[in-house]
Amino acid sequence: MIIFVDMDEVIADAYQAHIDIYNQEFDAQFTAEECMGREFWQCVPQEHQQSVRDHTHRDGFFKNLKVIDGSQDVLEALSKKHEVYIASAAMEFPQSLREKSDWLDQFFPFVPWQNRILCGNKHVLKGDVLIDDRSKNLGFFDGRSIMFTSPHNTEVKTFERADTWRDIADKLL
Amino acid sequence: MIIFVDMDEVIADAYQAHIDIYNQEFDAQFTAEECMGREFWQCVPQEHQQSVRDHTHRDGFFKNLKVIDGSQDVLEALSKKHEVYIASAAMEFPQSLREKSDWLDQFFPFVPWQNRILCGNKHVLKGDVLIDDRSKNLGFFDGRSIMFTSPHNTEVKTFERADTWRDIADKLL
Repeated sequence: MIIFVDMDEVIADAYQAHIDIYNQEFDAQFTAEECMGREFWQCVPQEHQQSVRDHTHRDGFFKNLKVIDGSQDVLEALSKKHEVYIASAAMEFPQSLREKSDWLDQFFPFVPWQNRILCGNKHVLKGDVLIDDRSKNLGFFDGRSIMFTSPHNTEVKTFERADTWRDIADKLL
Repeated sequence: MIIFVDMDEVIADAYQAHIDIYNQEFDAQFTAEECMGREFWQCVPQEHQQSVRDHTHRDGFFKNLKVIDGSQDVLEALSKKHEVYIASAAMEFPQSLREKSDWLDQFFPFVPWQNRILCGNKHVLKGDVLIDDRSKNLGFFDGRSIMFTSPHNTEVKTFERADTWRDIADKLL
């Protein structure tokens, strides 16, 4: 079985990074809990929204992301049983490409370079399962689409859902 | 129609870059014509082979590649008629990722970031045509596999072949 796994919001906690950067720079106290159903930039005052949206263009943003709980152990186990690919729509952010490669070397060394994909969209991936946080990716996939829960997607009802990596293990291991 | 186009040896002249670097550093006079049927590293004395194989790990190697004749005009025309993706197996060379993105911005700006793929292998691409110089990529592809002629692949008889971008235009435009 070929399984594609997204990076941001699935194995790398970009949402919390947006919150942490904003809280520090604007002396705010946002938490993920109060942002459910929205992108983080939609939660801040309008005059700060562009600043939040620009976080992803900063050097170091993707390099410093925290690993999502449970993703390492479950992905390592999945990799022994299935053909696991990391697939990240990263081409919009050229400075992120090396950072993402290095981040995977550091935290997911058991996914070899042969099984890593940095792309612009995921419409052209051929496989059995896609684990992703975005409708725009899941909706185009021919196989089983699993939405990984992130604050921004809690209101989406369209897809099979996994709230945690324990859920993924229950489904696929 | 979805068309995947490889970078090295198809739109970017990596083979000639290997020759140019070697000729300069070892005061040699190799030409592509005398290397037909072999990788360039196989053409040099054994004690220099590792040095040639390491070119692809150097900073700047991929940034400085020359564009293959005719690829810009024909790809631009193809892009107007079909869904064209650039797909390069680049993940083995982390330093190449940004260089390849910048190189495409410079020479193929009409292929937007949405249609660019940097991957480890091409087994998981779903589309209609793959233009590539390597059997290991073409052999796994479900659709129409077109081998683009490069000095190293002249002896391969397995695939439909294009010697030039004019051939590609005749086949696909």
